[in-house]
Amino acid sequence: MMDRKYMKIALELAKNGEGRVSPNPMVGAIIVKNGSVIAGGHHREYGKAHAEVDAFENATEDVEGATMYVTLEPCSHFGKTPPCADKIIEKKISKVVIGSLDPNPLVAGNGVKKLQDAGVIVGVLEDECKDLNEVFMKYILEKKPFVVMKSAMSLDGKIATYSGESKWISGEESRKNVHKLRNKLSSIMVGVQTVIKDNPELTCRTENGRNPIRIVVDSTLRIPIESKLVEGARDIKTIVATTDRRDKDKEILLKEKGVIILVTEQINNQVDLLDLMKKLGALQIDSVLLEGGATLNFSALAQGIVDKVQVYIAPMIIGGDKAKTIVGGTGVEALTDAFKLRDLKTSLIGQDILIEGYVKKGEE
Amino acid sequence: MMDRKYMKIALELAKNGEGRVSPNPMVGAIIVKNGSVIAGGHHREYGKAHAEVDAFENATEDVEGATMYVTLEPCSHFGKTPPCADKIIEKKISKVVIGSLDPNPLVAGNGVKKLQDAGVIVGVLEDECKDLNEVFMKYILEKKPFVVMKSAMSLDGKIATYSGESKWISGEESRKNVHKLRNKLSSIMVGVQTVIKDNPELTCRTENGRNPIRIVVDSTLRIPIESKLVEGARDIKTIVATTDRRDKDKEILLKEKGVIILVTEQINNQVDLLDLMKKLGALQIDSVLLEGGATLNFSALAQGIVDKVQVYIAPMIIGGDKAKTIVGGTGVEALTDAFKLRDLKTSLIGQDILIEGYVKKGEE
Repeated sequence: MMDRKYMKIALELAKNGEGRVSPNPMVGAIIVKNGSVIAGGHHREYGKAHAEVDAFENATEDVEGATMYVTLEPCSHFGKTPPCADKIIEKKISKVVIGSLDPNPLVAGNGVKKLQDAGVIVGVLEDECKDLNEVFMKYILEKKPFVVMKSAMSLDGKIATYSGESKWISGEESRKNVHKLRNKLSSIMVGVQTVIKDNPELTCRTENGRNPIRIVVDSTLRIPIESKLVEGARDIKTIVATTDRRDKDKEILLKEKGVIILVTEQINNQVDLLDLMKKLGALQIDSVLLEGGATLNFSALAQGIVDKVQVYIAPMIIGGDKAKTIVGGTGVEALTDAFKLRDLKTSLIGQDILIEGYVKKGEE
Repeated sequence: MMDRKYMKIALELAKNGEGRVSPNPMVGAIIVKNGSVIAGGHHREYGKAHAEVDAFENATEDVEGATMYVTLEPCSHFGKTPPCADKIIEKKISKVVIGSLDPNPLVAGNGVKKLQDAGVIVGVLEDECKDLNEVFMKYILEKKPFVVMKSAMSLDGKIATYSGESKWISGEESRKNVHKLRNKLSSIMVGVQTVIKDNPELTCRTENGRNPIRIVVDSTLRIPIESKLVEGARDIKTIVATTDRRDKDKEILLKEKGVIILVTEQINNQVDLLDLMKKLGALQIDSVLLEGGATLNFSALAQGIVDKVQVYIAPMIIGGDKAKTIVGGTGVEALTDAFKLRDLKTSLIGQDILIEGYVKKGEE
């Protein structure tokens, strides 16, 4: 019971790294001696001290003989910093309680092995510790970003009226929530159609927020030169994903404005989203907030790149056979081919209902 | 506090009348003397004793000087039974605690007035008592049925794939839940398109359930003679709502099969649903479970007949610009004209999420 209590504190500390540590995981650690917390720490920024070292630096008394609670298995290899497992042994910590094992093949159990002489307990609040780093858990294994498909719709699935009116379906609280998510994930992705229609900025309007990298899927480079995204490309990293079908003259103009052009493979004449994810992964982009329209959302699901869905449902019904829904495209033909979701949960955000769930993959 | 506790028991008793008392309200009553419950009763069936009388009949000792808890204001007029308020006075009940006032213009406060000499407390668990009889509260005031629009969809609003496959989107638990609702409401309504496509029975498959009256909206009488609904019309009351555009030869055939033909006004060449509701109200049908397709659902919302919506959301995404959604038709053009919902609540039914809410009317 005490272990769970202390691990909860470490989890809370870990969350302070949100949006700052990617593609590293968020990690929190506390040190407890004689029933008192004598140090707390977390991984603050990519390249900076790991949570364990941060905790040692903050200790208010000698840590020898103390217990360390850490949300993720301590590292055992030399990366940007020396191995934390060695540091823990050197500091004579007598017991280490770990939330979840590190899926990173460079760590994966080796941290625990090194610490075996100290007492090691693994798996306290394991689910919470894993959930905290769902982005990292995918990225470190697959080297592709974790993709969250986010939409706002009426109770009947519409993202706009048949005439195209869409502002605003979701309430203010929901929109604030989305800005918090933009602060948390590395990048935000839309289709060029959204840029043409809405001319969005895709910035994070949360206090002290940092802007995600902006990604536009645009197979032929139709993005308007005067759009806010292009105009602001020197201030906020902006990537346009395109194909060999791109307008080469436009490419030169866009590059002059500071836009990064990323050429991907094609699939049905469009940007191959799976290839795009691999390329974004190589650029150390560990997460994508997909705010697509009906067509891009369907392509993303069909190409298997979506990990999580978040749907805000507003308390209204719009109707209309021709009104756009959150997922369009051709759709699946047979129900057995529908994209299955797991672990749905609901919460009330202002007047809206938020439904979240994970896309089942393969045999899951 | 004790008042609330006893009213809760009365509420539970009231629910035993579910599906049996319409168009009367469900009512429960208990009698408490010296801190013990000495009688419980409820309105069991339309035309039978009211809850108060049922409680008197069940009393295990003399009720003189006792307190009665009753979920709805006791009646003060001669209907199918003598006024309960008189009976309560005659039995020398010394205090009456009432959940909600009766909206019936024949009662509305008169029951309370009659009982003034006894101590009367009104409004204990009032919201729960009103919710219990949301059907009655509408029917008694407007003489039109309370309409619940029920749908099952994927998270992206689809009721079928683009090829029309729709069995089954919702899970088994949800479908069981719907059968419980069919047992509770007086009637079930579908469009003729659903009859042609699915040939449903629209019966209640709950143990000891009773079948709702079946209503088909069919402006020209396209309903197949060999459909299960028509075949079973002698066993289960079946109404086809139609217009002056109806096929008169077909009408004769349907009537021979026991189908009741109800001719309504027209609106855009279709059945005028508001007129239909008035006519169903006149037939003492106090509630309708609307299990419509996209088109009928939109017409029902547009004509303002829907009171409550129940949407089962299955953990899947279907996609498809051409796949049907729960509400189709033309849809609203401007967001300000969308049908607004209030008091949304969610619950988990097996793997599905049920969202329920009420349609806002006018300035609400």
